Amino acid sequence: MSVTCPTPLPAQDMVLLGHGSGGKLSAELLRDVFLPAFANPVLGKLDDQASLEIGGARLAFTTDSFVVKPLFFRGGDIGSLAVHGTVNDLAMGGAHPMFLSAAFILEEGFPTGDLRRIVQSMAGAAARAGVTIVTGDTKVVEKGHGDGVYINTTGIGLRRDGVILSSDRVRTGDAVILSGSLGNHGVAILCEREGLELETDVESDSAALHTLVDAIFAVTPRIRCMRDPTRGGLASTLNEIAGRSRVGITIFEETLVIHDAVRGACELLGLDPLYVANEGKLVAMVAPEAAGDVVTAMRQHPLGRDAAIIGVAGGARAGMVTMRTSLGTTRIVDMLAGDQLPRIC
Amino acid sequence: MSVTCPTPLPAQDMVLLGHGSGGKLSAELLRDVFLPAFANPVLGKLDDQASLEIGGARLAFTTDSFVVKPLFFRGGDIGSLAVHGTVNDLAMGGAHPMFLSAAFILEEGFPTGDLRRIVQSMAGAAARAGVTIVTGDTKVVEKGHGDGVYINTTGIGLRRDGVILSSDRVRTGDAVILSGSLGNHGVAILCEREGLELETDVESDSAALHTLVDAIFAVTPRIRCMRDPTRGGLASTLNEIAGRSRVGITIFEETLVIHDAVRGACELLGLDPLYVANEGKLVAMVAPEAAGDVVTAMRQHPLGRDAAIIGVAGGARAGMVTMRTSLGTTRIVDMLAGDQLPRIC
Repeated sequence: MSVTCPTPLPAQDMVLLGHGSGGKLSAELLRDVFLPAFANPVLGKLDDQASLEIGGARLAFTTDSFVVKPLFFRGGDIGSLAVHGTVNDLAMGGAHPMFLSAAFILEEGFPTGDLRRIVQSMAGAAARAGVTIVTGDTKVVEKGHGDGVYINTTGIGLRRDGVILSSDRVRTGDAVILSGSLGNHGVAILCEREGLELETDVESDSAALHTLVDAIFAVTPRIRCMRDPTRGGLASTLNEIAGRSRVGITIFEETLVIHDAVRGACELLGLDPLYVANEGKLVAMVAPEAAGDVVTAMRQHPLGRDAAIIGVAGGARAGMVTMRTSLGTTRIVDMLAGDQLPRIC
Repeated sequence: MSVTCPTPLPAQDMVLLGHGSGGKLSAELLRDVFLPAFANPVLGKLDDQASLEIGGARLAFTTDSFVVKPLFFRGGDIGSLAVHGTVNDLAMGGAHPMFLSAAFILEEGFPTGDLRRIVQSMAGAAARAGVTIVTGDTKVVEKGHGDGVYINTTGIGLRRDGVILSSDRVRTGDAVILSGSLGNHGVAILCEREGLELETDVESDSAALHTLVDAIFAVTPRIRCMRDPTRGGLASTLNEIAGRSRVGITIFEETLVIHDAVRGACELLGLDPLYVANEGKLVAMVAPEAAGDVVTAMRQHPLGRDAAIIGVAGGARAGMVTMRTSLGTTRIVDMLAGDQLPRIC
């Protein structure tokens, strides 16, 4: 497994594809443009969802726009992805997902049949995830602008009592638990996009993770934070956690599950699975004494069958992520610098 | 003033610009594609915001994507518009606007300086409207896709106790109250887009209406429903209300305020101000005994100085809107059929 070497980036005066990667450039845009303007303590926590108190209710609130290309892929489509993505951001905040909004930006000339298929897929995904789509919006842009359809979903969840999850709560010694294999979503998209035929077909892992989260909280409240490693992959997610908590994180290569077909496609395409997007996996940072129980509980859930402790907080400089490789060497796992795979979600 | 004659539309198998107009085609798309798939009682009310109960809190929830072209215009920009639009949809539901999400779809190559200007404008508009932008998302699409920037804002508000506003609550005899002049936003956008120079410059009326709503509720709770007549203009909004409430609505041409420059531009361009978008006006359907007090209260507010009773529920067939013209004739005011002005918000 190779590790992407970050190259220093010049100050940019225009938006680059990499600004949407979930990696370093995304973080820069957030730090330089959005945070100074919108400055407030909730946004400043930089979690994937806002924790709100409103009218006595403890809510989680999160938004995501989906611009995935192609719109249909093995294992899902932009509609199911848009539901799963927002359900998961709520679930990662320890909230019960409840309500979604759905806003469509359609391109003139987009086949109504495809729209119907996407909307049906959203409805099915929402029903299975137990969330209700309660409000929406549709805009249309001229042919040649947009890409068929972009979807924004924004979600409201009800936070669990007594649970506070945040990426700044990790302490040295905490276990890093990953729910399963890496890279399936990104590779599925890329195969579809490039017309790549693999010996074994790779399906997106796109799925709603909230019942897996329920299974975790059924055994312990001792979870520091949870994240779904989507854009920028596991590497970027762990770097964000390390940065926010000011701890080092060490992961162990031999504990990572990467399916042969995914590994093969990544080698062929020069991608590093650590940086490839997942849409149905979670990383939990867990107090060490609870880690065994969490893994056991996750393995009994269909979406957590390959759950494992893949690392530990500590053993690296504060704010950094390193990997002990199968060969016994140690490598720095930096945040994604540019963009391996634009338009992945 | 001419009235747009609706032409019957063939069944469409692709998305047309008119599907984003807020008029007939938008309603068709909603009825044929979205509602059957997402079927639930909250969405089925077809109001501009969902009314939710969650954790004991009575919330309003609404979403809007903004694709206005050009991004900057006299009186505002896509950033301030995106804040005002969602604040207003919450306010029209009788809710106190509280929190917004902001999701950006950026085009590769978009100048960071312009993005900064838009984000600053959003921040200013949010601060003035007393709402906090608590969560966000950024995606980037390749150059040539998208149009610089699309913004989705989704908002949460706290509903007033004892207030239920819905477009199906209007009864014969209710007063139609409009807060001010018609057509300023649409004409401002069009002038900017077409490089049209008018003798008097027309500014967008883009503004947050929640304090005007506060002023109304300070004098009476007897409001049936409120709407901001954006896409599709006053005509489409009144048609939606008439359709939902199954009452007729009659409006009086001489009571409508249309600035000379707006009227002139509309005549020049063959537009009907009744169908042109407004972004800082509200229509309230009010119990007749409270109408005088509401108008008086609105006129004391900077955004309601030209408020007037412009019509009454009744005097037309159930579900229809008619206008008594200045000449004493009566005309049917149908819903917008196609799209007078695409990409207006």
